[in-house]
Amino acid sequence: MKFERLATDGAARAGRLTTASGVVETPIFMPVGTHAAVKALGPDDLRAAGAQIVLANTYHLFLRPGHDVVRELGGLHRFMGWDGAILTDSGGFQVFSLSKLRKITEAGVEFRSPVDGATHFLSPEIAVEVQQALGADIIHPLDECLAYPVSRSDAERSLDLTLRWAARSRAAHLGPGRTSQAMFGIVQGGVDEDLRRRAARATVEIGFDGYAIGGMAVGEPKPAMYDLTQLVASLLPADRPRYLMGVGKPEDLVHSVARGVDMFDCVLPTRNARNGQAFTADGPLTLKQARYTRDGAPLDAECGCYACRGFSRAYLRHLFMAGELLAYRLLTLHNVTFFLGLAREMRAAIVAGAFGRFQSRFFARYAVAVNAEPSAAEPDDAV
Amino acid sequence: MKFERLATDGAARAGRLTTASGVVETPIFMPVGTHAAVKALGPDDLRAAGAQIVLANTYHLFLRPGHDVVRELGGLHRFMGWDGAILTDSGGFQVFSLSKLRKITEAGVEFRSPVDGATHFLSPEIAVEVQQALGADIIHPLDECLAYPVSRSDAERSLDLTLRWAARSRAAHLGPGRTSQAMFGIVQGGVDEDLRRRAARATVEIGFDGYAIGGMAVGEPKPAMYDLTQLVASLLPADRPRYLMGVGKPEDLVHSVARGVDMFDCVLPTRNARNGQAFTADGPLTLKQARYTRDGAPLDAECGCYACRGFSRAYLRHLFMAGELLAYRLLTLHNVTFFLGLAREMRAAIVAGAFGRFQSRFFARYAVAVNAEPSAAEPDDAV
Repeated sequence: MKFERLATDGAARAGRLTTASGVVETPIFMPVGTHAAVKALGPDDLRAAGAQIVLANTYHLFLRPGHDVVRELGGLHRFMGWDGAILTDSGGFQVFSLSKLRKITEAGVEFRSPVDGATHFLSPEIAVEVQQALGADIIHPLDECLAYPVSRSDAERSLDLTLRWAARSRAAHLGPGRTSQAMFGIVQGGVDEDLRRRAARATVEIGFDGYAIGGMAVGEPKPAMYDLTQLVASLLPADRPRYLMGVGKPEDLVHSVARGVDMFDCVLPTRNARNGQAFTADGPLTLKQARYTRDGAPLDAECGCYACRGFSRAYLRHLFMAGELLAYRLLTLHNVTFFLGLAREMRAAIVAGAFGRFQSRFFARYAVAVNAEPSAAEPDDAV
Repeated sequence: MKFERLATDGAARAGRLTTASGVVETPIFMPVGTHAAVKALGPDDLRAAGAQIVLANTYHLFLRPGHDVVRELGGLHRFMGWDGAILTDSGGFQVFSLSKLRKITEAGVEFRSPVDGATHFLSPEIAVEVQQALGADIIHPLDECLAYPVSRSDAERSLDLTLRWAARSRAAHLGPGRTSQAMFGIVQGGVDEDLRRRAARATVEIGFDGYAIGGMAVGEPKPAMYDLTQLVASLLPADRPRYLMGVGKPEDLVHSVARGVDMFDCVLPTRNARNGQAFTADGPLTLKQARYTRDGAPLDAECGCYACRGFSRAYLRHLFMAGELLAYRLLTLHNVTFFLGLAREMRAAIVAGAFGRFQSRFFARYAVAVNAEPSAAEPDDAV
């Protein structure tokens, strides 16, 4: 994997990530494909939306259909019919947020599958093996992800474990079964600046192909998230890509790119689509509102996606109110197109040395709605 | 509307129906778009599947979003983004099968909406007005559709009402508000041959642009359905299209084309897709079966649809088991492609004077599975 910085504007960066499955132009948003599918979208839709890389959840694929099945069928790319880049998380976040009866030891974590109740064990080495079987272009070390708030001593203990697991993961990744896959380190450390500093330095010391900032958007105040992101990004090597896990809303993307982040993933555009929410340059639009019943305009007159080219708000509202599956596809397609377009616009602004002006224009126009906060690196599970 | 018979082979006919929205080559299958959308498919998918005409349910659109909304937004074609032909039923079947508290009088039928409990009234004249607002290319008169079994006297009384309503519907359709829409008459009469004969003759006497055979596939034995279809078709004018409402399985389509039917609609390919069933030339395939877990073959190696070109049975099974929305789109796309391909093959065989050979080949290969019977003209409502 190769990462080139093509332009910078303040802390913001425009880059090019060359993976085994093609080029990813950063800043980039990665649609979430929890079960090896971005909910309601086919690879044809993803391409049309401008997607270059998608995320798949190791935890979910490990449990169903199983990484051995995916490997037998040629790996994730072939399995899901997506020839662009793929990134897998390590499964850590989901083990800690979704599984019951977790038992954490130095060796790894034992947990029970919510699918069939079976007991499973993930160690740093097994998580690497599973991700090698899945075959994504970018993989991650097993980490412990703490909820917010947490005591300083718990945060410290957890960070130490995550760092020891990171070293074991990297060793396993560079070991005998080595693949062409890249591995990103994950910087944890909760909301404590000192711990985040330590986490960043120690993770960089192990040495990875890129760096993820984990444990954000788990309930901490927004200013803390932006400050910590800025702090961590400033401690990461400039010549490696930086990925802010599980973030976020359009405004979060803009704030974070301004702080030096290159990559994002979030269930927001896909999940909110299934709740009837469409993102536009003027802010989110909630289709269940009666005001759209006879609205012949497209969701977003500036958008070129299939949903906006072919259909009115009135029709999309009708589909949504009637529970028609087509509503989910069209709204998801639009939202993913919007997030990818936002990333593309930020990139162009950085290249033009006009990212400050872009931010002013964006925030002058984008009306921030009061929504449920998206959770970090959450799988996209609910319909 | 113009209908040309291009070839016949026994009772089977290959024709060309020219509607205000383009040509429909018969025999044809019409995917069911209950709420102005074929479940899980966009117009792009429908075109790719080879669809030329789709059905929409007047009853559902009358209740939600309301025919006035559809008219205001430019009619059904523009509303749903489908520039091919559209056929609407009259709403009669759904009033009788879905609504509670029906009160039938000579004037029309009063019923309560299952959406919001409001009371509505449909008369033959109002049903025409509603369908004129919706703007489909082919519309239908309000009819009474009886359940099976039914007493001879009830069937007779019902048929008489349906015939009086048919005359009023046709008069309303040809009246002052006349549009370029075509209207098909509906031949009812239950399972009684005499009543079906009377129904056919009286309906033809009123005079319509085409003829639908209604009240089939409501629980009567299959041989009775085929015999009655043959009887009714033989009494209809050869130069008008014949539409068998709510039918059916692939084998029913073949048997009915052999008896002179030109058009079909059924929820089977769409509904069964959402239950994980895929139709193939060898018979239906049930994806939840464990045997497909590692099956790298496409659903149907002979099919050129996106689902078969891009994905394995194993992947589609995985999507279905995980409840992924993409499974519904891909399986529906495949099934609709299969039904439309079957119609196209029958047409080619008739044109080639080889429909007998086609039937032998089809039945030698197609393994009929034991499934739930599809109901006539049923809206496609359940996920």
